[in-house]
Amino acid sequence: MRPVFFLSDFGLEDPYVGVVKAVLRERAPGVKVVDLAHDLPPQDLRRVAYALFEAVPYLPEGAVVLAVVDPGVGTSRRAVAVWGRRWYVGPDNGLFSLAWLLDPPRRAFLLERVLPPFPQGALPGWRPGEATFHGRDRFAPAAAHLALGLSPEALGLEVPLESLKRLPLALTPGPEGEVLTFDRFGNAITTLLQAPLGGSVEVAGRRLPIRRTFGEVAAGEALAYLGSAGLLEIAVNGGSAREALGLREGMPVRLLLAPPPGL
Amino acid sequence: MRPVFFLSDFGLEDPYVGVVKAVLRERAPGVKVVDLAHDLPPQDLRRVAYALFEAVPYLPEGAVVLAVVDPGVGTSRRAVAVWGRRWYVGPDNGLFSLAWLLDPPRRAFLLERVLPPFPQGALPGWRPGEATFHGRDRFAPAAAHLALGLSPEALGLEVPLESLKRLPLALTPGPEGEVLTFDRFGNAITTLLQAPLGGSVEVAGRRLPIRRTFGEVAAGEALAYLGSAGLLEIAVNGGSAREALGLREGMPVRLLLAPPPGL
Amino acid sequence: MRPVFFLSDFGLEDPYVGVVKAVLRERAPGVKVVDLAHDLPPQDLRRVAYALFEAVPYLPEGAVVLAVVDPGVGTSRRAVAVWGRRWYVGPDNGLFSLAWLLDPPRRAFLLERVLPPFPQGALPGWRPGEATFHGRDRFAPAAAHLALGLSPEALGLEVPLESLKRLPLALTPGPEGEVLTFDRFGNAITTLLQAPLGGSVEVAGRRLPIRRTFGEVAAGEALAYLGSAGLLEIAVNGGSAREALGLREGMPVRLLLAPPPGL
Repeated sequence: MRPVFFLSDFGLEDPYVGVVKAVLRERAPGVKVVDLAHDLPPQDLRRVAYALFEAVPYLPEGAVVLAVVDPGVGTSRRAVAVWGRRWYVGPDNGLFSLAWLLDPPRRAFLLERVLPPFPQGALPGWRPGEATFHGRDRFAPAAAHLALGLSPEALGLEVPLESLKRLPLALTPGPEGEVLTFDRFGNAITTLLQAPLGGSVEVAGRRLPIRRTFGEVAAGEALAYLGSAGLLEIAVNGGSAREALGLREGMPVRLLLAPPPGL
Repeated sequence: MRPVFFLSDFGLEDPYVGVVKAVLRERAPGVKVVDLAHDLPPQDLRRVAYALFEAVPYLPEGAVVLAVVDPGVGTSRRAVAVWGRRWYVGPDNGLFSLAWLLDPPRRAFLLERVLPPFPQGALPGWRPGEATFHGRDRFAPAAAHLALGLSPEALGLEVPLESLKRLPLALTPGPEGEVLTFDRFGNAITTLLQAPLGGSVEVAGRRLPIRRTFGEVAAGEALAYLGSAGLLEIAVNGGSAREALGLREGMPVRLLLAPPPGL
Repeated sequence: MRPVFFLSDFGLEDPYVGVVKAVLRERAPGVKVVDLAHDLPPQDLRRVAYALFEAVPYLPEGAVVLAVVDPGVGTSRRAVAVWGRRWYVGPDNGLFSLAWLLDPPRRAFLLERVLPPFPQGALPGWRPGEATFHGRDRFAPAAAHLALGLSPEALGLEVPLESLKRLPLALTPGPEGEVLTFDRFGNAITTLLQAPLGGSVEVAGRRLPIRRTFGEVAAGEALAYLGSAGLLEIAVNGGSAREALGLREGMPVRLLLAPPPGL
């Protein structure tokens, strides 16, 4: 059976993650479910796209990646299962955009014929709402179906790869990029695919040296380096670059091959 | 072996969840443990009661539901194991009240004869406190015992079902209900068991339309709909209803079969 | 195979926990991974040291404890695997200090010859940074190696136990101790190894009674008791002692065998 790697913005304040896992287990008994992240900021597609880009290169071929961050639930946005070297199951809202740069889609299917789970309860007049929790009612059953190795054609129509939604984000060697998002530590992740040692970056009116890692600047100093996902990151040693430098999503970042003046 | 579904307000800032799992594993080797939620607001029994109501219909028959939100630990509140179509293990403080509407109790046992785990440490004069972490010392051993399929009579005396504590909450088809609690997204969950399309709700001095889902109102607009747990919810499309509408727990909510004026 | 108990400050806002688990699974197929805690306050070594002290007595002998809270990543701090009655894998920054009082180290090895995982991605010019995510690139591969029961000598040189870094913290029967850290509920954990009933503690200009548990004082009242880890804790029944009493890390706490005046 294929393992399922599960990411959402459901948090652990509510039982939604647990309910999805219960449905996965019921449909695919014995399935291995590994949590990727569940406290993602609600409905932040850039953050999710980065999280999946960070994770996907380390997930085994054939795995099922179940990602539910879904601001458009209840609208006409499509639900899809996409095959590259892994299965991607989630809303068709662009959240897989960056991961697919690493693992390009080869086939895509709509989730139109998924049977929701059957809830059991003895309360007269009670029935669960069916329009707002597609993680439970549509994505988990589809992920379980694929984890079992069953046919994607049973889920719904195949659609052209060009019809899949993508976020308007480009990863680039530079020199012009932007702040893609932030991580929990306040480090800024950019869209730049390199961080040449000896160079520098311009961001928010400053020019920062590129180093191998935090320890090469003093505590409280800002720097740039090649982050763990292969993207240039901007950090403050022992602090939050987001706060200390006043960074925001989408801010331009420029890569320079020369060091900052005075270094 | 029965799977254990585990819910608490322990958070993941502390190792309490991990310790409980270590005890479950030690007592019931090979047991499957699925996390339902652990970042529940501390000691908020209404929120827990809702979380369990949301989850229970999707948990397999025969499962062990271990729930530890326990403001009364160290008082005379009882610890119980209750059998419906699943086992419920936790403090007798009403946290299972709503879940039991779906899966009514059939037998109840006190946890009086549970052997706590035996900690191993080489530090002279050290011994763990036994009065404050019943999740580790009482509930986990009891849940492991039941996961193994052993006899509930070994845990303690059987007690009448009428003696089980319940929260003063009624779920009702309406027309009068109240705000039960909130989820992570700021949606208000009410005690109303229906959300008839074409109708409306009155809450906090406003009258809101009932729709199938968020996408049927504009961004920033408030609405009501039948939530995933089968309870009427109040939301703001793309925002927090709790903040935008100034909602609070216990506020009255009235169901009307007519739409708001002007619609 | 040895189970792996995993603790970090990675949070669940980012996929770092999931990536570490994917690497563990890839290197040691079928390994059991149990989360101890992941929302620890970033880079707070006292809090981590307490968390591991709380958990370790309940972890099975032979387990692998993987702990990654690593403010010095990218500096010259060493990475180690240490054998007591369990394996401890992490940065050599003192985070295991208190756990090792319960399970003293017997052998220690540097992590110098660990092969990082091989990421798979089709994006030209892309390569992950290797200097900042030792959880993925060094600690997880080492933990997987040990979980498989392979030789620690293959990881790196053995080093003297005296060279292992320790935090400057002593656990003591008293009478003089200090506030070690806080838990999620705002309870203060101290360095005192006992809480004799009938006695009291002086802290922050107050004198508080020692009780068995919360329920023995009125709501809103402060008390001390022997906490679940075997350390004296200071709490406010139904509140946060940290806030209500203005406590801070390192504050002196004095144990007295007499009760507070007037009791």
